[in-house]
Amino acid sequence: MDLKETIRTIPDYPKPGIMFRDVTTLLGQPRAFRQAIDELVQPYAGLGIDKVAGIEARGFILGGAAAHQLSAGFVPLRKKGKLPYKTITESYQLEYGVDEMEMHEDAIVKGDRVLLVDDLIATGGTAEAAIKLLRRAGAEIVAAAFVVDLPELGGADRIRALSCEVQALMAFEGH
Amino acid sequence: MDLKETIRTIPDYPKPGIMFRDVTTLLGQPRAFRQAIDELVQPYAGLGIDKVAGIEARGFILGGAAAHQLSAGFVPLRKKGKLPYKTITESYQLEYGVDEMEMHEDAIVKGDRVLLVDDLIATGGTAEAAIKLLRRAGAEIVAAAFVVDLPELGGADRIRALSCEVQALMAFEGH
Repeated sequence: MDLKETIRTIPDYPKPGIMFRDVTTLLGQPRAFRQAIDELVQPYAGLGIDKVAGIEARGFILGGAAAHQLSAGFVPLRKKGKLPYKTITESYQLEYGVDEMEMHEDAIVKGDRVLLVDDLIATGGTAEAAIKLLRRAGAEIVAAAFVVDLPELGGADRIRALSCEVQALMAFEGH
Repeated sequence: MDLKETIRTIPDYPKPGIMFRDVTTLLGQPRAFRQAIDELVQPYAGLGIDKVAGIEARGFILGGAAAHQLSAGFVPLRKKGKLPYKTITESYQLEYGVDEMEMHEDAIVKGDRVLLVDDLIATGGTAEAAIKLLRRAGAEIVAAAFVVDLPELGGADRIRALSCEVQALMAFEGH
């Protein structure tokens, strides 16, 4: 099936002029969800992925399924203050202000082969912070995989510039 | 393997006297994560589960994997203000104050057979709100499945009193 047709576009969300690409309508359709996960992980099956890292919160849904399908562990990358154990932190720029991403300090063993998963890549700021955090802990990032790419915002190019492979199942023009 | 041994206990988190049961150490171990998902969904394979509903945020990781394994769709139950489309809302009591859980109004089709998934059941307040929200939308809840039960807090009994089957992979005394 054409997965792109399962994405719902919500105009002017979260603010006027933004076309929000809502993946929940894909996740809710059994065949679409299954196909999306299978397409996301297929290039990395047999490549010895040790961990899938998922970015809170929609990246948890896709990343959890991807980790199970690859028989890998799952590493949650969370907003500040949400993880119960000792963490390492990476700051990143938002449109207005700065945010911080955290990971448990023992979530990655040096040399772990990691697939990073999120639902969507826009400017790539969040994904870049995730990659820096994982690499600081000693991860070898095999690729960053997304359901939706918004190429006009340049995120995929930004991540490739970090010498990280990027995969997306579909792209939408406009943002 | 004994999944209970993969859970990390963090004393005095998030406040003095609480023994926090941290499932991230289970999720991070490939064999433990795979076994947990397989044990969680095995009783419901072949029962025609249409959707797995996961509670934000750790329920997204487990629920996403469970939905994929069951070839079901996934429905996110989120904190207020996080979902982009029209929602229905259920309020529930916290220790101090009230919180609200939201679901997209079109996430459930009347008669959908739903498995509710979260990492842990304590007092059951969040799970009860989830069940009420799903039933209001017309879901038939087949069961609520958790990795960890804290039986002293009575959550599982509270959910069973709603005529909902409860399953947990392990229990910890003390809380």
